[in-house]
Amino acid sequence: MEVTTQLQLRYSDTDQMGVIYHANYVTFFEQGRTDYFRQQGIDYNEIEASGIIFPVHDIQVTYHNASRLHEEIYVVTSVEQVSPVKIQFKHVIRSKDSVKATGTSVIVCVDKTTFKIKKLSTALPKVYERMKANGV
Amino acid sequence: MEVTTQLQLRYSDTDQMGVIYHANYVTFFEQGRTDYFRQQGIDYNEIEASGIIFPVHDIQVTYHNASRLHEEIYVVTSVEQVSPVKIQFKHVIRSKDSVKATGTSVIVCVDKTTFKIKKLSTALPKVYERMKANGV
Amino acid sequence: MEVTTQLQLRYSDTDQMGVIYHANYVTFFEQGRTDYFRQQGIDYNEIEASGIIFPVHDIQVTYHNASRLHEEIYVVTSVEQVSPVKIQFKHVIRSKDSVKATGTSVIVCVDKTTFKIKKLSTALPKVYERMKANGV
Amino acid sequence: MEVTTQLQLRYSDTDQMGVIYHANYVTFFEQGRTDYFRQQGIDYNEIEASGIIFPVHDIQVTYHNASRLHEEIYVVTSVEQVSPVKIQFKHVIRSKDSVKATGTSVIVCVDKTTFKIKKLSTALPKVYERMKANGV
Repeated sequence: MEVTTQLQLRYSDTDQMGVIYHANYVTFFEQGRTDYFRQQGIDYNEIEASGIIFPVHDIQVTYHNASRLHEEIYVVTSVEQVSPVKIQFKHVIRSKDSVKATGTSVIVCVDKTTFKIKKLSTALPKVYERMKANGV
Repeated sequence: MEVTTQLQLRYSDTDQMGVIYHANYVTFFEQGRTDYFRQQGIDYNEIEASGIIFPVHDIQVTYHNASRLHEEIYVVTSVEQVSPVKIQFKHVIRSKDSVKATGTSVIVCVDKTTFKIKKLSTALPKVYERMKANGV
Repeated sequence: MEVTTQLQLRYSDTDQMGVIYHANYVTFFEQGRTDYFRQQGIDYNEIEASGIIFPVHDIQVTYHNASRLHEEIYVVTSVEQVSPVKIQFKHVIRSKDSVKATGTSVIVCVDKTTFKIKKLSTALPKVYERMKANGV
Repeated sequence: MEVTTQLQLRYSDTDQMGVIYHANYVTFFEQGRTDYFRQQGIDYNEIEASGIIFPVHDIQVTYHNASRLHEEIYVVTSVEQVSPVKIQFKHVIRSKDSVKATGTSVIVCVDKTTFKIKKLSTALPKVYERMKANGV
């Protein structure tokens, strides 16, 4: 399953090269993950309220083409792998005409106060099953 | 008393006008306030850990000259007014040669969990007294 | 005329108080201005391409209530004053239920390379007339 | 050669998990690269003024431990590989006591107006030689 999210670009996203600053793509990946969860009926805010957070463990981005502020930019998100402790997402940042960047993000399941790893499969079994159904 | 803080500018602070993006100055004001507290022997992290936060209630900025990434930029912070519930700071953003922006920020004393106003004078009497000694 | 723009909040907009970081509201004001121009048939990207930029000259924000990531947040933008050299906007940041912040922003008309003030009324007469029709 | 740069953390760098937001590490990598160049007597601002920019082509980050606002955080930067068209950096984000994140960034040499790849070895031979002397 692929979830496509249109990004609301901001003037503050640009840099003095005249393009969208590269680190913002990592934030766009997060927009994609949140929207992916939402499409699955999973509310990330509720998860955080229950004492579990999903910090990012790994990020990889390859930049293909610069994005400009006036372009319509989308993040296309899919799930590559789901294990009891982590979820790997694949992301494509693109306009209608060209691929801007591709990459992956890996999130882990962690206790909000201790930052200790928790098994997603036991802490949030419903989320785990739903994500598992989409990934590998 | 005036506290001068050199700012570490970042490429991400620039925008497609080729200058430091204007909203970042509001962040620089916060750098100035934190450093002002530190110079007074007040550790803002300790205050937060004790359950009190200082959200910003008012911000005013007038922009005089653009700042460029290669410039050495400073925020000069002083206290304009201290009342039992709020502190008003004055900020000047400047390079050695020119004034970039001037402005004020007002912070209030609030309970971390309820976000209800607390009297600084009773919640943190030492902080109140020390700040009072500098302002009006 | 009032233009209402829904904001796409980002996880990166939050801070360790658990709320939307206050300086981001200044960016939201800019989202509001850009959308206001768009609703008037004015493309801000075209203006920049023509060699004119609209740097911010003044910002004022009063914060009434904290915004949380899961809330639907809007910026409501209107024009307060239009002169040959500057435009003053009024902004309200709000959810459906409560006002989060109110403020104003003043932009000036400037040459992109020299950063010298230009008269909006002569540099971009159509933009000036259209904005003038909305403001005072 | 390793260059160590102390980072000036900002309140705006934090997120509602109470830690430094992960995408900011990508910005810290850039702080490291700029400082690395500076230590080599290379002024990145001069390079940009000459019509060459160094956009990021690849980013990889692995997060080991969360960083808190009150910590002293450093980015340690070294050069892993230098070719006529790209430079690969290695970065470690750390406090005195623990490694926060490790990663790499690859920058390419590009014409500022066309965004077409240029050979670093011919466009900026002195920079190329100096970087080549440090990397592999």
